[in-house]
Amino acid sequence: MSGSAGDHRTLPRRRGRALDDAILSAALAELSEDGYGAMTMEGVARRAGASKASLYRRWPGRLELAVAAARHGVPDLRVPPDTGSLRGDLLALLRALADRMDGPAGEALRAVAGEALAGRESLSALRDLSRRTVVVAVTEIVRRAAERGEATSRPTVQSLLVGQAMLRDHVLFVGCPVPDDVLVEMVDDVLVPLYRAP
Amino acid sequence: MSGSAGDHRTLPRRRGRALDDAILSAALAELSEDGYGAMTMEGVARRAGASKASLYRRWPGRLELAVAAARHGVPDLRVPPDTGSLRGDLLALLRALADRMDGPAGEALRAVAGEALAGRESLSALRDLSRRTVVVAVTEIVRRAAERGEATSRPTVQSLLVGQAMLRDHVLFVGCPVPDDVLVEMVDDVLVPLYRAP
Repeated sequence: MSGSAGDHRTLPRRRGRALDDAILSAALAELSEDGYGAMTMEGVARRAGASKASLYRRWPGRLELAVAAARHGVPDLRVPPDTGSLRGDLLALLRALADRMDGPAGEALRAVAGEALAGRESLSALRDLSRRTVVVAVTEIVRRAAERGEATSRPTVQSLLVGQAMLRDHVLFVGCPVPDDVLVEMVDDVLVPLYRAP
Repeated sequence: MSGSAGDHRTLPRRRGRALDDAILSAALAELSEDGYGAMTMEGVARRAGASKASLYRRWPGRLELAVAAARHGVPDLRVPPDTGSLRGDLLALLRALADRMDGPAGEALRAVAGEALAGRESLSALRDLSRRTVVVAVTEIVRRAAERGEATSRPTVQSLLVGQAMLRDHVLFVGCPVPDDVLVEMVDDVLVPLYRAP
């Protein structure tokens, strides 16, 4: 088998970001095709044309790798949408989050969440996936809206989490994709009234 | 083994509600001790001192039995709390839901949700567990508050789901039990402003 396309010893040596990308893409492909249950460090290494040691140097185990893969290639929400209105920004953010939950990255995410819930993995790796980015994005959206006089200036942590919680609840307990009219209802019936409230 | 305490053939014949209760209690005990992965119809039947046939007459398979067990013995929310104020009712409801997610019934629920998310079971059995009861309870709480002039009279479906979504998101992605000050924040910072909003 030496010399095959998948043998990392015959490939030009990749480092840093390029190798990260190759490994994460391979992990995402494995997750989409066969699910988390069947994903192994060895299989991902083979598909990426990388050594198992190079995987373990980056991620302590397959859960951490799957979580990293679920984040890989999805829209970066750290720079929140800026459409000029509170409603527009919130809708754009919810649509981006909903997109992220659909497709292979969302499938990977649901699989990992399932393993954690079923008690086969720790929840702690998941926490990282979830709250911080969205809180930062919504904080910025509401801050800009407050400057325009559209919103209250001091939303609380719980209120910043509402949109993501509703979206995730729909994805987990109803299914994917979340219909756009549901996203519009979440924004118009819940989020805009909430951030506008005195 | 004939004549042992667990042999259903030697027990007085139970029917209807009494047998349901015995089977569901046994299923809950199996779920709490060993998790959903290890729960079998046979094991539950043995523990309940019932025949396997009597289980299958009631529930088509182990997922349906686990879902029924998760609901068994938890507070009935179809009659929502009536404390005389919007805030009091919402807080009582959230506390009851949070209690329900803690303890063995919640553990069973998380396990079943995990199996469904991980793709080993269908989500459809779970849907039944979730939305309807809470929507009915919150609708009634808000209707009474509107009669007292405390709330808007026509909340939308999405707004009725907010409390449950936030609670479930906390249970799934942060953990159980949900601290009481988090429940208070959900009520004071999100739900009361939302249902009071014009």
